Amino acid sequence: MKKKNIIILGATGSVGKQSIDVIKKNLDKINVIGLSCYKNFKSIEPQIKILKPKFISIIDPEIAALAQKKYKNIKIFSDYNGLLELSSQKADLLLNSLVGSIGIEPTITALQTGKDIAIANKETLVSAGDIVKKIAKNYQKNIFPVDSEHSAIWQTLQGEDPKKIKKIILTCSGGPFLNTPKEKFKNITPKQALKHPTWSMGRKISIDSATLFNKGLEIIEAAKLFDLQPDQIEVVIHPQSLVHSGVEFIDGSMILQASYPDMRLAIQYALFYPERTKQIIPSLDFSKKINFNFQKVDRKKFPSIDLAFQALKQGGTMPSVFNIANEIAVNKFFNKEIGFLDIFSIVKKTMKNHKIIKNPNLKQIIEIEKNIKSKLK
Amino acid sequence: MKKKNIIILGATGSVGKQSIDVIKKNLDKINVIGLSCYKNFKSIEPQIKILKPKFISIIDPEIAALAQKKYKNIKIFSDYNGLLELSSQKADLLLNSLVGSIGIEPTITALQTGKDIAIANKETLVSAGDIVKKIAKNYQKNIFPVDSEHSAIWQTLQGEDPKKIKKIILTCSGGPFLNTPKEKFKNITPKQALKHPTWSMGRKISIDSATLFNKGLEIIEAAKLFDLQPDQIEVVIHPQSLVHSGVEFIDGSMILQASYPDMRLAIQYALFYPERTKQIIPSLDFSKKINFNFQKVDRKKFPSIDLAFQALKQGGTMPSVFNIANEIAVNKFFNKEIGFLDIFSIVKKTMKNHKIIKNPNLKQIIEIEKNIKSKLK
Repeated sequence: MKKKNIIILGATGSVGKQSIDVIKKNLDKINVIGLSCYKNFKSIEPQIKILKPKFISIIDPEIAALAQKKYKNIKIFSDYNGLLELSSQKADLLLNSLVGSIGIEPTITALQTGKDIAIANKETLVSAGDIVKKIAKNYQKNIFPVDSEHSAIWQTLQGEDPKKIKKIILTCSGGPFLNTPKEKFKNITPKQALKHPTWSMGRKISIDSATLFNKGLEIIEAAKLFDLQPDQIEVVIHPQSLVHSGVEFIDGSMILQASYPDMRLAIQYALFYPERTKQIIPSLDFSKKINFNFQKVDRKKFPSIDLAFQALKQGGTMPSVFNIANEIAVNKFFNKEIGFLDIFSIVKKTMKNHKIIKNPNLKQIIEIEKNIKSKLK
Repeated sequence: MKKKNIIILGATGSVGKQSIDVIKKNLDKINVIGLSCYKNFKSIEPQIKILKPKFISIIDPEIAALAQKKYKNIKIFSDYNGLLELSSQKADLLLNSLVGSIGIEPTITALQTGKDIAIANKETLVSAGDIVKKIAKNYQKNIFPVDSEHSAIWQTLQGEDPKKIKKIILTCSGGPFLNTPKEKFKNITPKQALKHPTWSMGRKISIDSATLFNKGLEIIEAAKLFDLQPDQIEVVIHPQSLVHSGVEFIDGSMILQASYPDMRLAIQYALFYPERTKQIIPSLDFSKKINFNFQKVDRKKFPSIDLAFQALKQGGTMPSVFNIANEIAVNKFFNKEIGFLDIFSIVKKTMKNHKIIKNPNLKQIIEIEKNIKSKLK
């Protein structure tokens, strides 16, 4: 098999680091053409010897200059434009694990320059899903999910006719407060909210998993990735995080994907698709007792789910507003400016006050995000 | 879509009846060319008006003669040769739901005359799996499973490379005696053994589900259908019978198929493959709590599992001996000639005394079955 050439954006984040771990275990199958970071060059520097990238993008110009001095054989790009330059280099696949709306344009650039996308950047799908899907279609390129839930749906759809999807089951651990009574929500601290029961993740996504805003974002992402109507998406609480999601087809047959919770499986699947490669996570061990429990999500306790469906139904710029308002609220919660419950009310209020633009272009989306950021600050 | 033309062998049995129910709900997609029964013509007679078959095979010559008098426009075949004549008629698919080794030759005839097979006849795969697979390959025809477990594996393999199977998980309800201590096994009556907790099935298969000989037969069938080595098959107890089986791939990802236990889903999938058609069974309802529990099978309590693996590993005529010895023992148990535990010991002893013929032909297989039948009677 020909080696795959890939570019990794956001190589120093949680998904970026895990993807490098996956790649190191599959060096016979993959070439890393380029890597990007914001300014934490130190943390990717040790990978250079092993991965031998031709290009590195460092947003911070000073650090980029220093890196270029040290590594004469690597082309170092700097600034935001450098990120786009990296995204336009020749490769088979670009893994986008940037955080925030900064991730949208590189996705578009990469599609337009002939690459498939492995997408871990939520904003690409939530804020600009329609735009990006259209470009992917025009350039006949694919967008592969990296999230475990969407990877599960993607895996269960292999060999199936997507028109025969009745609905998807999007599983949700329920986070650390699944069994906490709503009355106690107002006293939840950032420290408590960061303790996720099953997944090891970044800081912001851990809070989003506690509020279920993460599941809300995944609802919108799933709708965009798999062309689903809102009523084709069912969120189901599954505390063990072993079944990562599934699809029910029109004949009533349900196909589910399961494994121990480890992002690296989904990352590996996206990197090497359509080939399944070596095992780097342990098998589910049925010689011990294993339980998959499922229950309804409590939408009153977690209004994030209804807000997500509302944003999805209203469409246009609303999913973007849903996302950005939550992002700002989570920051305020970290800074102890607001309480846990305020995250829900800030998003709700921001959505209520927003006047939707239908079929927005990328500029309009970015503009609205800026406006909301300045208003909420 | 062009209507599928099918022939149903064993139309009066449990699978046959359920398949007719499935067909009646999909009359726009299917033509029934022919039906077969042993002598219970009465029970298929009401279907003639709806299904309008061109051919009917009735083994009993007297009943066949009476039926021919009554239905001048239908060609009625009689005797065992008539069954083979029916099997050689032009059609797209033959559903073989005959019981016993009488089902092997019609499968071969149907493959040789250009039909895919939907197989519910265990003997075809257990006793003559290698022969039948070879013929299917030569004639470029397919053998589709009808059992829920094998259908689940088949469904989860869609779009996947079968070479990338690490192992299959063959789920097993555990039957009515999952939690009965082994000491009480000797007193189990046929009446108790017939009460299956989750599936509604025929009489013999209900006993086989109580002894787990049914799972043993399924182990062998799975190995033949999906070209698996014995150590690629793991039997897992799943008391709810909601997950019908699944596959773990070499990357550690597991794909499972689930639904409420109803054979009609698997029958429908086999009849209309590759198309998924309308829903005739209810969806799994995640608005209520649903649990999938899994645990190890107790191989000491149910020696049928080890005996099946032994038969599979030894190969040749041994799987056939495993099957026929069990069939005879179950009959004796029904007739209260032997106790429940004797079923295990009869199979074990018969296997021990058998001298394996490697790569047997069909005649040798039938001969051995006859010999064992006469010895055990």
